[in-house]
This record gives sequence, C-alpha cells and structure tokens, in this order.
Amino acid sequence: MSAADETATQSNATDGVVVVCGGVGAARLLRGFVGRVSAEQLTAIVNVGDDMDLHGLRICPDIDTITYTLADAVSPERGWGLDGESWQAMAMLEKLGGVDWFSLGDRDLGTHLYRTQRLSEGASLAAITEEIASRWELPLRMLPVTEDRLRTMVTTVDEGEISFQEYFVRRQHSVAVTSVRFDGSASSRPAAGVLEALRSARRIVIAPSNPAVSIDPVLAVPGVRDVLIERRSDVRAVSPIIGGKALKGPADRLLVELGREASALAVAEWYADVVGTLVIDTVDADAAPAIEALGVTPLVTDTIMAQPGVTESLAEILLS
Amino acid sequence: MSAADETATQSNATDGVVVVCGGVGAARLLRGFVGRVSAEQLTAIVNVGDDMDLHGLRICPDIDTITYTLADAVSPERGWGLDGESWQAMAMLEKLGGVDWFSLGDRDLGTHLYRTQRLSEGASLAAITEEIASRWELPLRMLPVTEDRLRTMVTTVDEGEISFQEYFVRRQHSVAVTSVRFDGSASSRPAAGVLEALRSARRIVIAPSNPAVSIDPVLAVPGVRDVLIERRSDVRAVSPIIGGKALKGPADRLLVELGREASALAVAEWYADVVGTLVIDTVDADAAPAIEALGVTPLVTDTIMAQPGVTESLAEILLS
Repeated sequence: MSAADETATQSNATDGVVVVCGGVGAARLLRGFVGRVSAEQLTAIVNVGDDMDLHGLRICPDIDTITYTLADAVSPERGWGLDGESWQAMAMLEKLGGVDWFSLGDRDLGTHLYRTQRLSEGASLAAITEEIASRWELPLRMLPVTEDRLRTMVTTVDEGEISFQEYFVRRQHSVAVTSVRFDGSASSRPAAGVLEALRSARRIVIAPSNPAVSIDPVLAVPGVRDVLIERRSDVRAVSPIIGGKALKGPADRLLVELGREASALAVAEWYADVVGTLVIDTVDADAAPAIEALGVTPLVTDTIMAQPGVTESLAEILLS
Repeated sequence: MSAADETATQSNATDGVVVVCGGVGAARLLRGFVGRVSAEQLTAIVNVGDDMDLHGLRICPDIDTITYTLADAVSPERGWGLDGESWQAMAMLEKLGGVDWFSLGDRDLGTHLYRTQRLSEGASLAAITEEIASRWELPLRMLPVTEDRLRTMVTTVDEGEISFQEYFVRRQHSVAVTSVRFDGSASSRPAAGVLEALRSARRIVIAPSNPAVSIDPVLAVPGVRDVLIERRSDVRAVSPIIGGKALKGPADRLLVELGREASALAVAEWYADVVGTLVIDTVDADAAPAIEALGVTPLVTDTIMAQPGVTESLAEILLS
C-alpha cells in the first residue's frame, strides 16, 4: 500500500458515520445527517428483529420506515408506510376472513413483493435493501444487521411468548411484558460490512429507538456489542425517554416492566457499557450528574425532532 | 345401510353435474349451469397447471377466474381479474425494477395473500378454495384437480421450455410451441372428492377451454382420464374451436403447432377416447358426419356465449 492509499483509507475511516437504527425515531434522526454527511460516509445499521413473514411475504418494517422516510414518501399522518397509500388488498383480505391485524397498503405491498421475489431468487437482504434504496435514490447506505433469521420475541403476562409484531401491532403494545429475547441471535452473524463500518467510523450514533426491542436486537448479533464496547468513546446515543415518557411507542412502559425506570438515567444505565456520551433532553437536565457518575458523558439539548430545527441541531451535536 | 339411505345416495349420484374446467371459457359456461343445477350438485374440477409461485405468493389463475366470474366480480373489460381493480402494488414493483410481466391488481392480491397465508398454516388448496368460494357465496363446489404440484410446461422453438404463464402472459402466446408437458403429473394424486364426483355424476361436461393446456393437465392426473373413459357415454364436451378459430387465447394456433388442425373435428379427435358427445357450433355443422364417424356424437348449436341466451341454451343441451 502506498502512502497515498494509506491516507485515503484513513480519511475514509475517519469520515464515516454509522447510525444504529430501529424504525421511526431512527428515520427522523437520519434526516438530520443527510446533507451533513455524504451518502458514501453515512451507514445505517438496521434492526431486523421485528421483521416478519406473513402471507408468504417478507416484511421488514424498520428498513422500510427508513427507506420511505428518507425518500420523502412516508405518510406524514401515520409516520410509517407510504403517502398516497390505498388499502384494496387489505379490504379483500378482510372480506375473505384472512389475517388482517397487520395493515399492508397496496403501494407498500409492492415493496414486499419485490423483496420476497428477490429473496426467492437467492439475493441477500443487504443486496435487496441496496437495490430498493438505489431506486429511491436514498442518500445513505443501509445495512440490515444480519442476513440470518433473528426475531424479537416478547413474553407477556397473559399470553406467554408472542412475536414482536403481535405485541406491537396486534395487541397495540397494551399487554404487560416480563421479558424480551432475540430468537436466533446466538447463531446469527453480522451482515457483510457491518463490523467493518462500525470499526472504521469516526462516530457511531445510537438512534432514539426503543433500547429493549429495537436497539438491543442489533447489539445481540455476535460481534456488534464487542465493537461498540471497544469504540465506546466514539459512541453517542440519544435518549428516547424525555421527561419520563417515550415520544412514541411503549419504550417508557417497557423499561418499567423490565425492572428499570422510565427515565434518561435508566437509558444511560441500559447503554453504559457501549455508550460514551448520551444526549438527553433539556427537560432531563437534572439527570446529568447521575449520568456522569455512571461514566457516561451527558449532553443536554432539545431532542424533540417534531420541533423546527431540532433534528438539524441534534445531528450537529452528534457529529461534533 | 338402510333402503332409504341407499335411495338418497343413488339420488345424489344421479343428480350431480361435474364440469372439467380451465379458466375464462369454463367460467362463462358455469354461469349457464347456475340456477339449473343446485349448488350441492354442481362441481367444478379445476386445472392447476397454470398455477404459479411469484413474489412468494401462490397464484391460481383458473380457480380465481371462475371465482370472480361466478361472484359477478370479474372485470367485464378484461374477462379476468376483478372489477374496480387498482394497480398500486404493480406500479411500485415497476418502480423498483421487479418482475412486472404478470399483472396483479391490488384487490386480486388480497386473494393471493389469503391463499398463501392459509397454505403456510397447513390448509389444503381445496379447503382454501372452498373458504374463498364461501365468502363470495358461490353457487357451486370447486375442487382443484390435485393438491400436488403440477405445472404445465411449454417447449418453444426459440426459448426451449418455459412455464405456461411465461408462454401465455409474458410472451402473449406469440411464440411457436413444439410440445406441452405437465410437470409433476405422473406422481400427482387427485384431490379428495375428485374421482368420487366424476364417478357419481349423472353428467360430466368438459368446458370449452384449451384442450392442450387447460383440459389435458386435468386429465393428466392419474385416475381422472380412466374414469372419463369408463363414463365416456356421459361425458359431453364443448368445442373451443368455432369456424377454425379460438374465441380467445391460442387454442387454434396451438393445435396446429402440435400437429393437428384448428377445427371442431380435430377437437373431436383430441377427445375421442373420453368424450361421448361433442357440442359444436352451427358454423361447423359440416363436420358432424366426420365427428360421428369417430364414434363421437355431434350436437350442433350456437356456442358463442357472448351472444344473448346462448350460455343458457348451451347449458340446457349439456344437461339434457
């Protein structure tokens, strides 16, 4: 390797930004990085624990939420799925008495048809995800954390173990949870490029997704947590808990049900081994000393991305 | 068995009408039987040779064409698929660069989603077909000829062997064919009820579907042809060739390519071992003596079902 090559490689390595992602919260945060980080240098490593096979189709909700959001094609009302969506297939499924608790729009179905056909042809999920991202001209690289089957399973008080989507969508996350596990994680392998991206990035960001069911399944893929531990000082997370509440979804209640508390401090404790810096909301500024005492550096700022300018300032802070 | 039971069974047996079916032509003919034969006594045994697996979904074009037609839900413009259809999933598939030569409407997709999910749950195709028929309140019993994988394969001059749908839809049946075979037929078994229905029916009708690619795959399921040979005097077919032409589809050209001629007489020759009576159109009355000479009784009448009253009179003749 020549000195010039070496410099180029080092420059690559030190420019990359990797975002560890769940769905909606991650998608919104990624919007802040677009324009600040070039497409070549921005990598999203995405949870696949809430993927499911339904009606014969492979459905990857977190990948699709990020895709549709960054394509400016997401439904602004729902925050997931596509804008301009119609529901004719679902109406037929209901008429026939089929499984209808998981809403699949007609446009969205096109994505699942494409993915499932390509999988049947032997393409990898990473390749398919890249194809879809390319058709939407997305300004980033998206990698499913693993090609292997990994499924987030939730044990509930009343119904025993159910899949993540049965918990999240079918029961509208209204049932009490006693534990979470990631079926298949022990034998899963990181997808090609995942560990390399994490090792070479100048900054690793953990999105404000649900720690227990969106980020933990990514960390459960052997090798991923280890790299984060090694690179802890370069890892920044954003707390999904603001003033004791999750902006969206059941992260607050889930933390309590799993024996923690719903607070920015509890998020710091959850991530203490892998995160050097935790960005918390201004309303949680009081928690800063306790977070610091855990060995995690608190950064206090506005984090509610629905407010104008916050996504952008949050991205600046995470990159600084 | 009591004398009363025996009478009931015999009465059942002698009332039944079985129609051996392809898609569009069969669906139109079945309309004529509805009202003349009770739902309990009318059985359609349907070709599965042009079924396909695409995008992870099981698609059964002939079953669906019959379902939608008898439900009065078929698109009158296309003659297949559903009325009030939209194409949002296809538009997405096209955007993504997916396999888009087989058009799947959004409403129609609901049917394939339902079927595929039920298959994955272990339901039989016959049970699923009955469920769908029941939701549409169809006035007949519909049986796929087999639960086993049977696929009509077409050898073309230019491209070698391709699947039926690749021939029929993708190439718009515009390529020359040298032979047809039914992959899987040798090891296939008739679905539950198929042979019983054929054995007990007072009349067996072969619909004016394509003999080479729609009816032959039904007859290729071991046991089916044998029952028809035994019951030949009770089997009536309708010629799909009228004045040397097929009303729809490539039956005329296909017969020629397979070394026959496109004529009512050639249809009589094709079916001579299994059909006692062949209904031919008035324009083909000249062929009657030659058909008779084959040992097949010709019945001459109007057979173009698009004309008012013809479907009904055709049904009367087939039942008489």
